[in-house]
Amino acid sequence: MAVDKILEEVDRGLDDAVARLFELLRIESISTDPAYADDCTKAADWLVADLNGLGFDASRRDTPGHPMVVGHAKSDGPHLLFYGHYDVQPVDPVDLWDRGPFDPALEDTPGGKVIRARGSSDDKGQLMTFVEACRAWKAVTGELPGNLTILFEGEEESGSPSLIPFLEGHKDELSADLALVCDTGLFDPETPAITTMLRGMVQEDFTITGPDRDLHSGLYGGAARNPIRVLTRILGGLHDETGRVTLPGFYEGVHPLPADIKASWEALDFDEKAFLGAVDLSVPAGEDGYSVLEQVWARPTCDITGIWGGSTGAGFKTVLPSQASAKVSFRLVGDQDPVAIKAAFQQYIQANLPADCSVEFRSKDTAGATTMPVDAPEFAKAKQALTEEWEKEAVFIGSGGSIPIVGHFKNILGMDSILIGYGLDDDNIHSPNEKYNLTSFHKGIRSWVRVLDRLSRG
Amino acid sequence: MAVDKILEEVDRGLDDAVARLFELLRIESISTDPAYADDCTKAADWLVADLNGLGFDASRRDTPGHPMVVGHAKSDGPHLLFYGHYDVQPVDPVDLWDRGPFDPALEDTPGGKVIRARGSSDDKGQLMTFVEACRAWKAVTGELPGNLTILFEGEEESGSPSLIPFLEGHKDELSADLALVCDTGLFDPETPAITTMLRGMVQEDFTITGPDRDLHSGLYGGAARNPIRVLTRILGGLHDETGRVTLPGFYEGVHPLPADIKASWEALDFDEKAFLGAVDLSVPAGEDGYSVLEQVWARPTCDITGIWGGSTGAGFKTVLPSQASAKVSFRLVGDQDPVAIKAAFQQYIQANLPADCSVEFRSKDTAGATTMPVDAPEFAKAKQALTEEWEKEAVFIGSGGSIPIVGHFKNILGMDSILIGYGLDDDNIHSPNEKYNLTSFHKGIRSWVRVLDRLSRG
Repeated sequence: MAVDKILEEVDRGLDDAVARLFELLRIESISTDPAYADDCTKAADWLVADLNGLGFDASRRDTPGHPMVVGHAKSDGPHLLFYGHYDVQPVDPVDLWDRGPFDPALEDTPGGKVIRARGSSDDKGQLMTFVEACRAWKAVTGELPGNLTILFEGEEESGSPSLIPFLEGHKDELSADLALVCDTGLFDPETPAITTMLRGMVQEDFTITGPDRDLHSGLYGGAARNPIRVLTRILGGLHDETGRVTLPGFYEGVHPLPADIKASWEALDFDEKAFLGAVDLSVPAGEDGYSVLEQVWARPTCDITGIWGGSTGAGFKTVLPSQASAKVSFRLVGDQDPVAIKAAFQQYIQANLPADCSVEFRSKDTAGATTMPVDAPEFAKAKQALTEEWEKEAVFIGSGGSIPIVGHFKNILGMDSILIGYGLDDDNIHSPNEKYNLTSFHKGIRSWVRVLDRLSRG
Repeated sequence: MAVDKILEEVDRGLDDAVARLFELLRIESISTDPAYADDCTKAADWLVADLNGLGFDASRRDTPGHPMVVGHAKSDGPHLLFYGHYDVQPVDPVDLWDRGPFDPALEDTPGGKVIRARGSSDDKGQLMTFVEACRAWKAVTGELPGNLTILFEGEEESGSPSLIPFLEGHKDELSADLALVCDTGLFDPETPAITTMLRGMVQEDFTITGPDRDLHSGLYGGAARNPIRVLTRILGGLHDETGRVTLPGFYEGVHPLPADIKASWEALDFDEKAFLGAVDLSVPAGEDGYSVLEQVWARPTCDITGIWGGSTGAGFKTVLPSQASAKVSFRLVGDQDPVAIKAAFQQYIQANLPADCSVEFRSKDTAGATTMPVDAPEFAKAKQALTEEWEKEAVFIGSGGSIPIVGHFKNILGMDSILIGYGLDDDNIHSPNEKYNLTSFHKGIRSWVRVLDRLSRG
C-alpha cells in the first residue's frame, strides 16, 4: 500500500528534512520587531521556493505587514487548507540561551534528541512536518497528496494585523472544505491530541501618568503622586483572595465544564505536581476549587505580562517617575464577551485613578473563545489516523492558548478547522532555549501522511 | 573694605566663571554607570588642576571607586572644610532633553537666565560657587580666605561607597572646626536658606522569582504563579487608605514637629498649589492631615522608585515572566531606626510571598535622619551673611533629601555642618533638562564671600 511506502520514505529522508528545517530556523523572522522585517520576507521567500520545488503553485503575497505565503496543488477530492506561521517570538533575554537562538542544532537530552532553536516548535518545525509529508508523498507517488492549499502567515506572534483583510480579499482562493492547523501540542510525549477548545484573548498595554516629569524623591517624596504606587495598587486589586478576577461581570458567559468532558480530562490522569514542578513551582495559582487542567483549559484568567516604570537599571536613583506602565492579558472561555471585558478593565482603571493622574491605553484586537464541532466525521478520521501512528488513543483536549485563526477561518471563509500539532509543554516556546523533539518532527511528518491519506479519500 | 572689593571682583569675572563651569559640565561624570569611570577621573583631575592654580595644595586621591579631590590652604583662624560632589546623575531618558545633557548653554527663560546641563545644579554649579568665591578673594587680597580644606567627592549619586573608609583613613587631615556643605537649595528664588533637618534613607532593590523560566501564558496561564502579580499585591499593600505606611513599627521615633518650627514654616506662606501645579499635580499624595511642607520635610515616606518585569517593549508578548523586580526607597525622620525599618520591610515581603516564590534583596547602605545644632554661633553668622547678600531674612528649613555626609562628618570627624545652597525646586535635578539659575550661581559666589568673611574672623 502507498501509505506504507510513503512512511518509509519519511524515515529514509529524515536527515535531509532536519537539514532543511535548520535552513529555515537560521532566518531571524521575529515579527514584533520592525528591525527584523527583511528577515521575515526572507523566510517567506524560502518557503515559496521550497513549495514551488515540490510542485505547488506558490507565491509570496505582500501585505502592509509581513508577507503571506500561498501555494496550491489542484486535484480531485476534498479541498484542504493547511495553515502555519513562519514568524517567531523575540529572543530576549538572550543571555539565558545556552546557544544562539538562530543557530539550530540537534542535541541529546534525557528526553531524547531535540532540535534547539527559536521557532523549532513554534511554529517552523510544526509547519515543516506538513511540507515534509507532502515531499515524501510526491517522491513516492509522483503527485502531491490531494487538493491542497497552503497558507503560511508571518504575523502570528504580532497580532496578525494583515490577516483579516487578506482572508477577506482572497475568499474564493482560500475557502476550502476544511482547514488543518498545526500550531498546538501533543497531550504528552506519547499521546496525540486534537485541540477542540481554545481560549480567547483581551490584551491591554497602558501607561499611567502622574507628574509631568521625573521628580527627585528628596524634593517631592511624600507630597507628589507616584504613578508606580497607583499602578501597583490597581493591579494588586485585580484578584480576590480565592484567585477570582474582581472585574464586574467578568464571569458572565463562563459555563461549567460539561460532565463528560470533565470526566475524560480526569481520566487523563494529569500529573499536576510534575507539570508545575517542571518549572520550579508547587502551588496551583489559579482559582480555588479547580484542577490545573481546568485552570489552563477551561477557566478565564487575568495575567500581568509586563510592568515597567522609574529606575530599572543597576544602582539606586532617587527618582519619582512621571509614568508607570503595564501589559495585562485576559484569557477568555465559553461565551465571555471580549469587548465588554476590555471596557470593564478600562473602567476599573479609570475609577481607581487619582484626580491628578491620567491613563493612556494601547489596546490589542480582542478574540473570543472557540469550541470545535467535534461530532463532524473529519474529526473521527483524523483521530483514527493519529491513533494508528502513535499507537495510543488520540484525545480531544482544550488549550489555554489563543489561536484566533480558527475563528477567522470560520467567520470569513466559512470553514471548520482541525488542530493537530506535536509540541510539548517543555518546548520553551516564547522562552529561552526553545526546542522541538526530534520525535515530534519525525512522527509529526508521519502523522500528516496518515491524516492526509484518510481525509483525501473524502 | 576688602569684602566689597571682592564682591566687585565676583561681578567683574562672572563670564569667565561661567566659562570655567561649562568646562566642568562637559565632563560626563556619571558615577552610577561604570562606563563613565574615566570621565569621573577626568572631572577630579580638572578640579585638582583648578585648585592648584588658585594656590591650594590639592591632589587626586584614588579610592576603590571614583577619586576624591582634597585641597588645603593653611592659615590662621578657624579651620573650615568645604564639601561638594563632582559626580552627576544618569541622563536617561535622553530623548526628553531639549539639548545634549553635557553640552552646557546659557538660556533665556521666563524666570531669567539659566545654565542648562546635567550637574549644573547638582552639584557642579554649586561647588564652583565656593571655588569662584576663593578665586575672587585671592585676586583681590593675594591670599585664599582663611584656613580651608576642600573635599570633593565623586560617588555622591551612587551611594558614596568609598566615603566612610576615606574619612576614617584621613581623620587628622580632614577634621576641621566646621564643615560647609553646598548641595541644598534656596527656599524660593528670593529667600536664602540654611537646611537644618535632613531625612534619612533606606533603599531596597529586590527581585521575586516564581517559575524558573519565562512561560507561555497560553500553556500555563491560570495555573502558574505570576511574580508580577505577587509583586504588585505586595507593593499595593504598603500604604493604607490615609497614606500611612503599613509596616509594623514604621512610625517609632517619628516625633511631632515642635510648635515653634511648625509656626515658622506656616509663616513661610508656602504655595502648595503652585508647588504641585508646577509638575502638573493637584492633590498632595502624602499622609492625610499634614501640610505639603511637613510631608516633604518632616514626615517619613515610602516610594517605589522603579519596577520592571516581563515584556516591557513595544507590542504584545504572551509571556508569564519568571521574575519581577522593584526598587523601594524610604525617607526617614527623627529617630526612626533605618536598620529596623529595612528588616521590617524584608520581613513584610517574605511574609507575603507564596510558598513557591523566592526573593533576592540588593540592599543599599542606610542612613538615619539628621537635625543640626542651630543654636551654635556659626549658624547665626552664616544666616546674617546670607540675609545681607539676598536682602531678605534667611530661614532655617527642612529638606526631604538625604545628605548622609552630614552624619559621617559628625560621627567620624566630630564636626558639625552648615548646609547652604542655591538650588531651586524647578532645577530638574535627577531629571531631564537640569538647570541652575545664573542668579543662583552669581549670588551664590557672592554669598560664600560674605559667609567666609564672617566665619573666618572666628
